[in-house]
Amino acid sequence: MLSARTADWSAAEANPLATRDREEEMALAERLTDAEIQAALATVPEWRLEEKTIGRRYRFGSFMDAVGFVNRVAEVAERRNHHPFISLDYKVVTLRLTSWHAGGLTQADFDEAAEFDRLYEGMRN
Amino acid sequence: MLSARTADWSAAEANPLATRDREEEMALAERLTDAEIQAALATVPEWRLEEKTIGRRYRFGSFMDAVGFVNRVAEVAERRNHHPFISLDYKVVTLRLTSWHAGGLTQADFDEAAEFDRLYEGMRN
Repeated sequence: MLSARTADWSAAEANPLATRDREEEMALAERLTDAEIQAALATVPEWRLEEKTIGRRYRFGSFMDAVGFVNRVAEVAERRNHHPFISLDYKVVTLRLTSWHAGGLTQADFDEAAEFDRLYEGMRN
Repeated sequence: MLSARTADWSAAEANPLATRDREEEMALAERLTDAEIQAALATVPEWRLEEKTIGRRYRFGSFMDAVGFVNRVAEVAERRNHHPFISLDYKVVTLRLTSWHAGGLTQADFDEAAEFDRLYEGMRN
């Protein structure tokens, strides 16, 4: 009885574990090297590297403009299923991006950063 | 000519300066004592004192629920003209309040904290 249970447990777990290993390998492969990060940073010059994240501050004319930006950022984040850390300090919004699953920065972080910058430019024009 | 200019400058500045002094005095008078802060904290037991601020984390079932809460917090902040520091980390919203003009915590911080708590309870029911 005990050994049967152990066998069931092993059978149930074996496949998910193997899947997780493959996912981890793919995620690690996505992580950018330092040289790739420097090249990607040049495409979003307002963003600053901090440890394994990139961040940028955006200033607005009013608190409600800043809130409006946060809402548009949230829409982008949901669509991409990639959620930045967001802070709102009166008229200043700070965004910070990293790819937790890859243990560092990926191209997805830089693509999303560029989209946030386009949103901001669109709101100012 | 120089003395006339000096006189004009003094006349123009005298009243605003006096007004500012009175405002500063009133603002400082609003600031709660340590004993008053402890009593006020008991009314919002989920909030934690940190230096001259109070803060609380709110957890949500989804990122968009958290964004919805931030929008309602923003409405309250605009109506009261008292803006908390807001951060949004996926499904967790952190709010932090202080009264800059008074150099510390005032009853307004605790009143607003209680309103945010009521909003949150309303969203969960």
